[in-house]
Amino acid sequence: MLESGSRTDISALGEFGLIDHLVEHFPLKNKSSVIGPGDDAAVLQRDSKTYSILSSELYLEGVHFDLAFHPLKHLGFKLVVSGVSDILAMNGTPEQIAVNIGLSNRFSLEAVEELYAGIQIACEQYKLDLIGGDTSSSRSGLTLGIQAYGWVDKKKVTRRSGAKPGDLLCVSGDLGGAYMGLQILEREKRVFSEHPDMQPDLEPYDYIVGRQLKPDARMDVIQTWAEKDVLPTSAIDVSDGVASELRHLAKHSGVGFDVYEEKLPIDPQTLDTAVSFDLNPSVVALNGGEDFEILFTIAQSDYEKINKHVDFSIIGHATEAAGSIRLVTRAGSAFDIKAQGWPQSH
Amino acid sequence: MLESGSRTDISALGEFGLIDHLVEHFPLKNKSSVIGPGDDAAVLQRDSKTYSILSSELYLEGVHFDLAFHPLKHLGFKLVVSGVSDILAMNGTPEQIAVNIGLSNRFSLEAVEELYAGIQIACEQYKLDLIGGDTSSSRSGLTLGIQAYGWVDKKKVTRRSGAKPGDLLCVSGDLGGAYMGLQILEREKRVFSEHPDMQPDLEPYDYIVGRQLKPDARMDVIQTWAEKDVLPTSAIDVSDGVASELRHLAKHSGVGFDVYEEKLPIDPQTLDTAVSFDLNPSVVALNGGEDFEILFTIAQSDYEKINKHVDFSIIGHATEAAGSIRLVTRAGSAFDIKAQGWPQSH
Repeated sequence: MLESGSRTDISALGEFGLIDHLVEHFPLKNKSSVIGPGDDAAVLQRDSKTYSILSSELYLEGVHFDLAFHPLKHLGFKLVVSGVSDILAMNGTPEQIAVNIGLSNRFSLEAVEELYAGIQIACEQYKLDLIGGDTSSSRSGLTLGIQAYGWVDKKKVTRRSGAKPGDLLCVSGDLGGAYMGLQILEREKRVFSEHPDMQPDLEPYDYIVGRQLKPDARMDVIQTWAEKDVLPTSAIDVSDGVASELRHLAKHSGVGFDVYEEKLPIDPQTLDTAVSFDLNPSVVALNGGEDFEILFTIAQSDYEKINKHVDFSIIGHATEAAGSIRLVTRAGSAFDIKAQGWPQSH
Repeated sequence: MLESGSRTDISALGEFGLIDHLVEHFPLKNKSSVIGPGDDAAVLQRDSKTYSILSSELYLEGVHFDLAFHPLKHLGFKLVVSGVSDILAMNGTPEQIAVNIGLSNRFSLEAVEELYAGIQIACEQYKLDLIGGDTSSSRSGLTLGIQAYGWVDKKKVTRRSGAKPGDLLCVSGDLGGAYMGLQILEREKRVFSEHPDMQPDLEPYDYIVGRQLKPDARMDVIQTWAEKDVLPTSAIDVSDGVASELRHLAKHSGVGFDVYEEKLPIDPQTLDTAVSFDLNPSVVALNGGEDFEILFTIAQSDYEKINKHVDFSIIGHATEAAGSIRLVTRAGSAFDIKAQGWPQSH
């Protein structure tokens, strides 16, 4: 059955091309459906003043995580962050999650309890209720599904589609840390497999390893927007990498982006580690995924409101050159940013 | 990490024991959370008169389906039915679904299009919008996640917990067909692997094979309840088998159930096939899963409203003997029904 007829390799379309292709025959018909596939999360009518926001994703062993260095408690926490981050990117307040788990019989009850302990810590930290999820057996590794639910004032939902030429491009926190943390963890895994007696010393890499293993959901970002009375014109969370996220904002908004290399927020530990791996730190900042920061655009008139916030960086601006994503280097030359994407899928 | 400390096998708790154990430390705290884990679906506040209903589950190759005999188009359709059925069991009107897909590289674009074609047929048939879902790569087989969203009048939500002693136990449609269809398909798969030149003749088994491959979501059941002005005191969908579902209703409602063997609705094809497989048809009807019928209880005062509906069977009643689930045989003797469960997980 899988062999019959013509055969087109999925990689010919890429992940996002595949989704776009598959959902093009699914127009929204029900009145309660507000935003369908293509944004960070789906949006439904809730009451006269608010929308519901719903996100869902799979989280698969060997693709999204490696149990050789992702402790289960951290993994549970990160799973929740990954779901919640999509709600935040819509300017939504997350309130519930559901978790589905497929387990092979190599997992003990104690292992699953560890995973749930991490989920529980995240629920307490972010004031979330766990409202559902099933468990089932799995033929292969650990299969996880995370759903997050939240709400937003109808007037305040931030889509991917609202950026206008001239809008300022901003990002919370710093970039590339989670990716460099992963490089360290994968290096230590290789070293350990060759020299099992060697103990890894991760302390010099505490920040970036923490960014990989226990990222934070930026609940404070949407609170800051509210406090400063800023409504971003578009927003997306950085799960696949800024370069990839910029393509989404550009496509949905019909704009381009110029990003200033000197403005990219990079932690010194990320920078030093990138250099020691012979990687260009700017490339790492643009293409490293899983930072779970919020990338957003604001009208120029909101500049003063945002400018002095220590945790937000203004890294560029939207342009009229639809689809053109450029990096303006320190030397002043500009060249196209190719989205290398994240080796893991969104 | 997975090896350290004590190790308790998960099978010691069983699937439902595991869920109960894991979620016991997660009390609901947010005002918008109405029903958490433990029912067919989660329930959230929507507006002053209605609740939102949300279900999510994993659907895994080798556990929930076998691609040797589940055509991808049928699988897409069945995936949607599986999600929607949980909404119906809460007396909810499903309006949206989201689908997550993890794919190994053995799947072609054409294969995924087939899957989506089935999803699309289900969306059209049941008037659903596809509002989200991601795709990602998978190291092993086909990994699917299905979420369904709906709404219900606050006064009309049907939980698992409302059955009272004396209530009549009812079920839509007939039972055990999907299970016997699976037996036929597995037998033909074995025959084919030994004699690849033999063509299976499935025609004598068209009804039960159809029940397995292309089950129907019982949208009409909740419409009938509304038309007949019947509000069930409890409800659950038959995904794991009536015996297993009765344990849930009994546990949540604090009642027992007597089921009358002679009242079990069994299609002649299910009956004949069970006999030819040397299986007791009543055991098949009680333990076969994936029928996606709705099992529900009504007050005795609603008997007249339901009695003449050709597609509903009254198969027993709730008793005061909490937790006791008994089959009353044609000969009049009663014995405990053990929930053998469904070989596949919920």
